[in-house]
Amino acid sequence: MTREKGGFGRLAAAIGEAGGEVSQVETSRAHECTGLYELTIDVTRAEDVDRIETAVRALAGVRMLEVYDETFRMHLGGKLETLPKIVVRDRDDLAKVYTPGVARVCMAIHEEPERAHSLTIKRNTVAVVSDGSAVLGLGNIGPLAAMPVMEGKAMLFKQLGGVDAFPICLDTQDTEEIIKAVKQLAPAFGGINLEDISAPRCFEIERRLVEELDIPVFHDDQHGTAVVMLAGILNAVKLVGKELSACKVIVSGVGAAGTACTNILLSAGVTRIIGVDRQGALVRSRSYANEAWNLYASRTNPELEEGTLSEVIAGADIFVGVSAPGLLKREDVSRMAKDAIVFAMANPNPEITPEEADGYVRVMATGRSDYPNQINNVLCFPGLFRGVLDCRAERVTEGMKLAAARAIAASVSDEELSETCIIPSAFNASVAEKVRQAVLYAAYEEGIARRRSQVD
Amino acid sequence: MTREKGGFGRLAAAIGEAGGEVSQVETSRAHECTGLYELTIDVTRAEDVDRIETAVRALAGVRMLEVYDETFRMHLGGKLETLPKIVVRDRDDLAKVYTPGVARVCMAIHEEPERAHSLTIKRNTVAVVSDGSAVLGLGNIGPLAAMPVMEGKAMLFKQLGGVDAFPICLDTQDTEEIIKAVKQLAPAFGGINLEDISAPRCFEIERRLVEELDIPVFHDDQHGTAVVMLAGILNAVKLVGKELSACKVIVSGVGAAGTACTNILLSAGVTRIIGVDRQGALVRSRSYANEAWNLYASRTNPELEEGTLSEVIAGADIFVGVSAPGLLKREDVSRMAKDAIVFAMANPNPEITPEEADGYVRVMATGRSDYPNQINNVLCFPGLFRGVLDCRAERVTEGMKLAAARAIAASVSDEELSETCIIPSAFNASVAEKVRQAVLYAAYEEGIARRRSQVD
Repeated sequence: MTREKGGFGRLAAAIGEAGGEVSQVETSRAHECTGLYELTIDVTRAEDVDRIETAVRALAGVRMLEVYDETFRMHLGGKLETLPKIVVRDRDDLAKVYTPGVARVCMAIHEEPERAHSLTIKRNTVAVVSDGSAVLGLGNIGPLAAMPVMEGKAMLFKQLGGVDAFPICLDTQDTEEIIKAVKQLAPAFGGINLEDISAPRCFEIERRLVEELDIPVFHDDQHGTAVVMLAGILNAVKLVGKELSACKVIVSGVGAAGTACTNILLSAGVTRIIGVDRQGALVRSRSYANEAWNLYASRTNPELEEGTLSEVIAGADIFVGVSAPGLLKREDVSRMAKDAIVFAMANPNPEITPEEADGYVRVMATGRSDYPNQINNVLCFPGLFRGVLDCRAERVTEGMKLAAARAIAASVSDEELSETCIIPSAFNASVAEKVRQAVLYAAYEEGIARRRSQVD
Repeated sequence: MTREKGGFGRLAAAIGEAGGEVSQVETSRAHECTGLYELTIDVTRAEDVDRIETAVRALAGVRMLEVYDETFRMHLGGKLETLPKIVVRDRDDLAKVYTPGVARVCMAIHEEPERAHSLTIKRNTVAVVSDGSAVLGLGNIGPLAAMPVMEGKAMLFKQLGGVDAFPICLDTQDTEEIIKAVKQLAPAFGGINLEDISAPRCFEIERRLVEELDIPVFHDDQHGTAVVMLAGILNAVKLVGKELSACKVIVSGVGAAGTACTNILLSAGVTRIIGVDRQGALVRSRSYANEAWNLYASRTNPELEEGTLSEVIAGADIFVGVSAPGLLKREDVSRMAKDAIVFAMANPNPEITPEEADGYVRVMATGRSDYPNQINNVLCFPGLFRGVLDCRAERVTEGMKLAAARAIAASVSDEELSETCIIPSAFNASVAEKVRQAVLYAAYEEGIARRRSQVD
């Protein structure tokens, strides 16, 4: 980009001043003497891209040939492809995988529908279903705009769990219509991963599909989060030497994820759970317009504690946040029990940052990759679906979720376990296999695996 | 399998007598001296498999270790997989293809929905949709049993056209429900290939979806058959030196495929078309309970010919059969015009076999791969969808279908053209590219291509 001596330094400085950081410099050998560079620039705020472009254009002796956005470039044409597992080389192959040979396979399934689980992609394929109503932190952006997230999820399914996943973004946000559509398209699939569907519709949709379909249906925003949260909590209490069942736990945000986190904590033996939402601590002595809250209150808060988050958090051992950025104050954590554990999982910004909580919290986890202890669903769903597909379980049980959480927790060895390492990395390739085995074991234990052997 | 001298001869003879033919013999080097063979046996009738097994077991000195069905083996676990186009190597990649980076891509689509065509798999992905109501010659076997056919179709889409296709087998056979379901799952797809849906529902379903969706919808059983049939007819009349528009054409079977064949022949300039169904020649002077037949009669048979197939076929230049095996007799073809052209496309057995028609017919085509001139849809759909996706056409027009037919016909050179070569082989890899180019050209000519350039 520049030939002058010292030019590169000026260039880097201008980029830095405008908010960018040069993370990579490539010089093609042929152009070494021409001063042609390809720079990779990291930017924190999208707005800074224009500022950087303007700053670079303003530099004397520098000419900008091309600018592209690496993230958009990676999305061009989508992130998935559907490939034949066998190449059709000749008429003979064609006559086997397609007409006329395929007719015998069709009739075998027609006569014995169970065989679809071994003779079609149903054996290994999951639908990632969304209506685009609650996508990441973006809200209701609709099915078309939700596609890149579902494609990304499908990529991770395959890469980490060997599960073929296909994104289905439904052009309806009506509860009954979604239920009907998913039931209608179910024949091709061995499992349904519900994703980014807003509460309270997600509860009814999941409940009904679990009831009405004979393949596993799993709302990842609820149960995936709950499983990975519990895995982290198990290791955190182990580290600080507390008994989980004796802990006082505050759950902030009683929506889809908060309810699922509460359910799995109850299954794990915790009794002193207090849910807090906009009206303060939920308590069964009150009555709420939101029916889900009444149900929630009836199953939690045995000591009927009342008050705001700041009030009920006094003496709590564990804070589980799936609510909103900044909800938890430094004063609040200062009043928690000794060796406090704070899981501030609001996205994209936590209820309290590790910096603010510093000094009062022993173990801190967030949903972010730029802090230690990231609670990332990717630790659960690839291995969990791998397990249910492998044993042809017809649903995901509480026992399987608990088993998955324990397997994730066990992926951190006693030597590794520390305040900044209670949960394995999202890139730890062995986690999915451990989760798979735990889920398989639980499925056979509970007698809900429909596959008897590996040749079935 | 046998050590004795001459044992292999006895074995092959026994297999032959029981109805099988040894097409391949494999001897692993390590077992050469033990007489361990792996035989591939071709069988014409499925019933013969048991007979062969029994015959082989009865042979002294032969022990059968394992028997498997190659066609079923190729179907184990299904025939498709969904793969990431990019490997997620590290946190940096993850942050681009998934959260948080993906959010910017989602918002770009939310603000400008057209961008889904370039930033998601919509750009290259087609749904192969069936309700399993009219699968091959098997009839109404339902969505689960239809899966192997749809998977096979998806394989061919990718292998021949580079189109990612995903099988959607709907668990409903209600016209309105199918229309609604396809509309609801459309966001992920750039095109809809309807398949094996019974008439007359297929007409309404296609018509409504074409009207209500902004992506191409194509019922392959109708239009794919029609396009490839026309391609064959174009070459056949060229070979015999007739003018297509002057030919008298009998269409036997006025269902989905027959109507589509008639439509494309009308578009190609043929006027003397007589449709024949169970009630004989359809003629506008009569009235039929089947409304589709009244419409059909109003557009065909200008000379109001009446009578049975045997009667109206007198003097016909071309017979197009999409009806039932054995409908056409040797006497019937004997009364056709000189240089008669017979396309007997009933599946799995033609209206008349080439053997029976021999001597009276100049050019003969069927739907079968074991006779010359196979009318196979695979010559059309991969290239046609490749074309409409590449230019982002919002529908498939008559002009595009005619262009596709001409491109397929032109794939047979003047030197190759003969009575037994009027249509290219299903494995001629260049056909899809020629069809693609013809479709693209037609789309830009007609002004229905939504993509202006290759970088869009």
